[in-house]
This record gives sequence, C-alpha cells and structure tokens, in this order.
Amino acid sequence: MKQTHLFTKTRREAPKDEVSKNAQLLIRAGYIHKEMAGVYDYLPLGLRVLNKIVGIIREEMNAIGGQEVLLSALQDRAKWEATNRWDEKIVDIWFKTKLQNDTELGLGFTHEEPLTALMKDHIQSYKNLPQAIYQFQNKFRNETRAKSGILRGREFLMKDLYSFNIDEKTHDEYYESAKKAYIRIFDRLGIGGETYVTFASGGSFSKYSHEFQTICEAGEDIIFVNEAKRIAINKEVLSDEVLKDLGLDRSDMVEKKSIEVGNIFDLGTKFSDALGLNYKDELGKIKPVVMGCYGIGPGRAMGTIAEVWSDDKGLVWPESVAPFQVHLIALYGKDDKVRKAADELYTKLSENGVEVLYDDREGSAGEKFGDSDLIGIPWRYIISEKTLATDSVEVKDRKTGKVEMKKVGEILNIPFFAKASKGRQ
Amino acid sequence: MKQTHLFTKTRREAPKDEVSKNAQLLIRAGYIHKEMAGVYDYLPLGLRVLNKIVGIIREEMNAIGGQEVLLSALQDRAKWEATNRWDEKIVDIWFKTKLQNDTELGLGFTHEEPLTALMKDHIQSYKNLPQAIYQFQNKFRNETRAKSGILRGREFLMKDLYSFNIDEKTHDEYYESAKKAYIRIFDRLGIGGETYVTFASGGSFSKYSHEFQTICEAGEDIIFVNEAKRIAINKEVLSDEVLKDLGLDRSDMVEKKSIEVGNIFDLGTKFSDALGLNYKDELGKIKPVVMGCYGIGPGRAMGTIAEVWSDDKGLVWPESVAPFQVHLIALYGKDDKVRKAADELYTKLSENGVEVLYDDREGSAGEKFGDSDLIGIPWRYIISEKTLATDSVEVKDRKTGKVEMKKVGEILNIPFFAKASKGRQ
Repeated sequence: MKQTHLFTKTRREAPKDEVSKNAQLLIRAGYIHKEMAGVYDYLPLGLRVLNKIVGIIREEMNAIGGQEVLLSALQDRAKWEATNRWDEKIVDIWFKTKLQNDTELGLGFTHEEPLTALMKDHIQSYKNLPQAIYQFQNKFRNETRAKSGILRGREFLMKDLYSFNIDEKTHDEYYESAKKAYIRIFDRLGIGGETYVTFASGGSFSKYSHEFQTICEAGEDIIFVNEAKRIAINKEVLSDEVLKDLGLDRSDMVEKKSIEVGNIFDLGTKFSDALGLNYKDELGKIKPVVMGCYGIGPGRAMGTIAEVWSDDKGLVWPESVAPFQVHLIALYGKDDKVRKAADELYTKLSENGVEVLYDDREGSAGEKFGDSDLIGIPWRYIISEKTLATDSVEVKDRKTGKVEMKKVGEILNIPFFAKASKGRQ
Repeated sequence: MKQTHLFTKTRREAPKDEVSKNAQLLIRAGYIHKEMAGVYDYLPLGLRVLNKIVGIIREEMNAIGGQEVLLSALQDRAKWEATNRWDEKIVDIWFKTKLQNDTELGLGFTHEEPLTALMKDHIQSYKNLPQAIYQFQNKFRNETRAKSGILRGREFLMKDLYSFNIDEKTHDEYYESAKKAYIRIFDRLGIGGETYVTFASGGSFSKYSHEFQTICEAGEDIIFVNEAKRIAINKEVLSDEVLKDLGLDRSDMVEKKSIEVGNIFDLGTKFSDALGLNYKDELGKIKPVVMGCYGIGPGRAMGTIAEVWSDDKGLVWPESVAPFQVHLIALYGKDDKVRKAADELYTKLSENGVEVLYDDREGSAGEKFGDSDLIGIPWRYIISEKTLATDSVEVKDRKTGKVEMKKVGEILNIPFFAKASKGRQ
C-alpha cells in the first residue's frame, strides 16, 4: 500500500484523557480511534493487525476441529433466566436495550446460553458428539472502569469456542488439546515467552480453570510464576493446598503483574442441565452434554502485544501480526531516479507476495523515520540517492536496530521472504 | 469438509413462526438459526456463504480505492445531536442502552456521524482528499416489523462506504465509479440479471438517489421497470416529471415487487457542515468536504439470492457464493470399495483447491439426495458401486438438473475447476 493512499496520519500526542500505553501508541500511529472510554474503532493499519491475529487463532481452532459460526449480539431473556444470569444483581456487566413493544433484550457478554440452546436442534445422540463450535463476535460488557485502552473494552471482539462431549474423560482430552492450541497461538503472536499457563479458580465442576497470563506492567492481574517450570498461579487462588496440588514451592515463585490474554474453563453440565441439552448414549440412556469454554480477545491480544513489544520510539510488531512486513521508505532526490527505483522495488515486492507499506510521500528523512519507528513495521528498507550510488537498499530491523546494506537484486532473496511466503509467519 | 464433521442437521419443517421463504429454506438446510424475530445466527454453511459475499464486495470496494476500517456499534450521543438524529421522534429505529453511570448510548444504525467526526483527525487540506472509507459492521435497527427473514434484520451485517471529496464534480465521478462497482457486485453474486439501477428520492443535495432493486415477489418495494433500458423508478417518486427527466415513457414501464439490495446516496455537505469536517483548498480557503454513502447488506444479499435462486426442493446457490462447489455423495456398498474411492476423490479435489462437502454419512440414497437438493451446492458428484463399475462419477448440475457420467480421471479437468481456481468465480 502506498502511504499517500493511507488516510490516517500519525500524531505527536495522544488524546489527553488516554492513560494506557497501548492506546496512546496505537492512536498516535493511526491504528485505532477512540470513540469513548472502552470503545475504539479500528483504522486500516489496526484492522490489518486485528485480522492477522484472528487468522492465526482461526487456523488453530480449525486444527482442533472447531466449526465456525456467528451468533447475534441481541439476546432473548428467557435463555438467560434459565441459568439465572439475566438479573443484573447477579451479572453486573449487562448492557440491556428494548424493542419498540418494550420487550427487554440484552447485548451478549458471552454466549453459553444461546449456543447451548441452539445445539439442542443438532445434538440428540452420542453419534452427534463430540462438537467444538467457535466464533469471532463482538461482546458488550458494561465495565464501570475502562481505562486500559483495548485491553478492556466495553465492546470488543472475542473468539469464544465451546466444546460438547459425552463425558468428563473425553472432555478432559479435548481441554488438553485446546490448552496446547492456546500455547501455540500465543507463541505465534510473538508473546509466547511472556505468557504462562496460570491456575485460577474453577467452578462447580473442576477445581481449577486455566488462564493464559502475559507478564506486563500494564496488567490488572497478579500472578506467581515459576519460570523454570513455566507455570503460574493466580494470586486469587494461591494457597498451600494449591502449591501442594501442583508440586510447587512458594520460594520458587515470583510475583508479577500480568494481562489475562486467554482462559479455558470446564463448564461441566451447568448449562446443559439448565437448558436441557441432553443426548442418548449407546444404551439409550439420556445424559447431559459435558461442556467447556475457551476464550481469547483478539483486540486484547493486540493491546498486549503493543504493551510488550514497543519502545520509546513506538511500536515493534512481531512479523506474524505486523500490518505490513516491509516499510519501504524512499528519500526522493532532485531527479526522479529514486522514485523510479522505489516504485519498481515496491511493485516487485508486492508481486512476490510481500506486504509493503511504501512511504511515497514528499517529506524529510527525519519525519519519515519518526513515523516509521512509531508505526513499527518489522523491516525498514531505505532507498535514496546515497544507497542507489552502490545499487543498494539499507535494510533495518526495527526490533534489534541492526542495519545492513543489501544489493537491490538481493532483496528478493533474503531469508525473511522465504518465511513470509509461508502460511505460518 | 466431511459431512459427519458438520454439526448441523437438515430438518423437514421450518419453525412455525417463520413466514419468509429465505429463512424457511436457510433454517431447514442448516445455514442459519433464529434467535428471535429479525435476529439470526449464522451456522457453518451460512457463514461460508456470508463470507463469500463479503469477499466479493471487499474486492470491488478495494478496486475503487476503498480503505477498510471497523467502527464501534456503541454510539456517543453528542455526535448525533449535532446532526439532529439522536431524538427518537426523528429517528424511530434506535436501540439505546446505558452505561452504569446512566449515560445514554446508542447502537449504530448507520455511521455517518462517527466517521465524519473521525475524519477530522485526518483531513485538513485538499491534499488529504479524496478518500473512500468502508467497513463490514453490524448495524442495529429497532424495526417494528421483522418478518422477512434475513432480508430485514434487527441486527445485521452492513457494508457501508463513505466518500469524501473536494467538490460536487469529483464527488459525481466517484459516485459513478461506485455505481459501476455495485453493478459488478450484483453480477458476481448471481443476481445481476434481476437487479435494476432504480431512481429513488434524493435529499437536500441531489434530486435522486440510486437504489439497486432485485425483482422478487418477497420484496417490500414496488418499482417500475424499463427492461430494455435496464432502468427502474421507485414507485415513491414515479411522476411525469421524473419520467421526462429520464427520457422514459410510462407505457414501457412494468410494475414489479423488488428487494432493495443496495443504495447509493449523495450526502452533499450535510454531515461535514454539522460536524465541522472542512479542508483548506489550494488558495487557502476553508471549505466543507463533499460526502456520499454507499450501502449493501451482505445478509440481505444472501437472503435475496436464496429467494431468487431456489426451487421446491431447496436452495440453488450460484457458484460464486455457494458454501462449497461440489457436494460429493458416496453411496457405500457391502465392501469398502466405494468408501476408498470416495475418500481418494475427496482428498484429490481438496488438494486441488476445490471446496468439497463430502457426504460420508451412512444413510440411504434418498435421504442424501434430499439433503443435497435442500443444501443446494452447484455440482453434485455421486459415487457408488454402480458408477465405479465403469470407473465413473455421476455429475449433476443443481441448477439445470443435467446429469453426465464422467470418468474419475476426468473429474479434475472439467471446465468448472479452471473457473473455480480463479479468484473471480
């Protein structure tokens, strides 16, 4: 994409009311726009990042047998009354609205109820199980406090998968496969090293649930981490009993602030009992379906990456989620030699499937480099009269700052492109 | 995809309260699920169709310079008060909700206001224009009546593009290019032949707007069509003056029911005046930006296709939007010969990029054919002991009913695949 075509501009200052680092950087670089506290729009660069995160999660959900659907935000009260979650004294984050005839509707903050009810049309027998159904869908949560940028939104995209199994044993197997898929997802998003499987409070059906917590100062959670074993315990459940359960020693655990980037939860038969989702087993006996739920917020993941991978100059995207792989910066001289060479390089790279943001604006080198650091694309290619004197391009790695001169002809062969051309970036 | 993996089942009867043909067929075939009147979930088959429609529209919007964004549903009242559209006496389809502190919010039924306000951050000079910004975003409309299935939803996906130009002249040029893009879209969706550019009421800034109306008995609109000139006039504006304007004769016009599948509208400076979206021209003079808006509902388009392309047996998808290109139906015999051959064909077709739904269920031929007719995939391949006796597959065209025997080896070479392997299906 040519930067003269991109409608967003960078800005020096974030809005005064924006206190979170992720939103400050993402707004300044033109990735997002703030509508109000906890409500953000995604601009072209931001939507590209969000879509890449969605793409990675989708691949991993499909790999564990997930089938994609898209449920409505508007919610019918009857299903939520069946599980006792309609009452705002019990669920205090509802947004509610009304039809013209005064019928009250809710805006879904999660989707166990409607999906469990829906599955009654399709599950009658053990032969219809197991199933794993997921969606990328906008949730609405009426948060009292929303000061963490896109880490905690009042309206936000969520990947929620729900599993349906005949019993706890097959459920547990699926749960483990989902846990592994989550580890792969955070690895691929570039925050695997900072992210810990964290034991958190369970429910009626299991002692623990599992959170995926990314170590980060902006986090709202406190966890205790055993770095060697790559395991953590949420402070909320830390006790001698839990340490003993997990074979951990308190003295090996380090206290850290963290962001909950995902969680997986055994639902048992809570929802299938309440809504009547049963199946007939091989002997003809009627049994409730055993369920689990598995959530990741792609927007929150994007905000977490922005918090973890940024420096005082701006964002530093991992290749897998960067809006573009290459930021081609042309420093035009007196004649049109640089423009011709840069245009040609842009065309060739694009034709070879490389995602290039081409800074084809008139402007000073300082201005262009400043914008480029702020936007944070992994590879910067600078082409100028000076580099062309040796038929070269200056290649800079945004993460390490390492600079190398490469011949124009060589550019299409550097190892990065072999990688970029694969599905898994 | 193997049909044993697909969680949805077909059903003989639609829900009793469902009166529209599109929803009856789509529910029976397992494409959608009804949450309540005007609110539907998309199941795997339905989401595949919806995504194909979105893909086609996205390509055409990118081809006319559109930049994709994603705005929030939650709306801040101040921007809507600026244009006098907050008041429910003026806009009677609002869904409204409240923050915990009782601040009233709206759920966007369109996005002129927030996008115009957003663009103020990025447009200051004539150098920043023109721009065309679009999104695929869920709108909420509190319709009193919602009995048309996915043709008129209370919550529905909308592609809305907004154009920003320096003056009416450049706006008009863009408007014409968008009109052509819309014609291409409906052609590609398979309803081009039934869809007419229709003159409808304009606003303060232009005499007419343009609707894209698809002839269909389920439609809620009445238009007068000149078939030879492929032009129509909405009944709401039909008058001698309009006929004269367009050089049409009333006696050549046929009255038809139709569905409004798209519309494009000159907004003039209504929103830029109200919200202060101005630019500095080449002489330094401050001027308001000239805007247009361009809408298509992908869900409504899907419902329209279902209405137009269906018969008494079920759906008849055009190839471009079908959930799969091929429905491979195996009729298993006594030994595993058919299963082996069908599995191999499924693998080979899939490896060659053909989208195949493989009916690998145990079941009778009648049941499988009935489901297949209902689901409406364009090409049906039947493989059985009988067809394998001549090393063949029976190929049936869902639309024409035409049946041909093809050698297994030939299957990968039929013209369809050449077409399917191209971007434009």
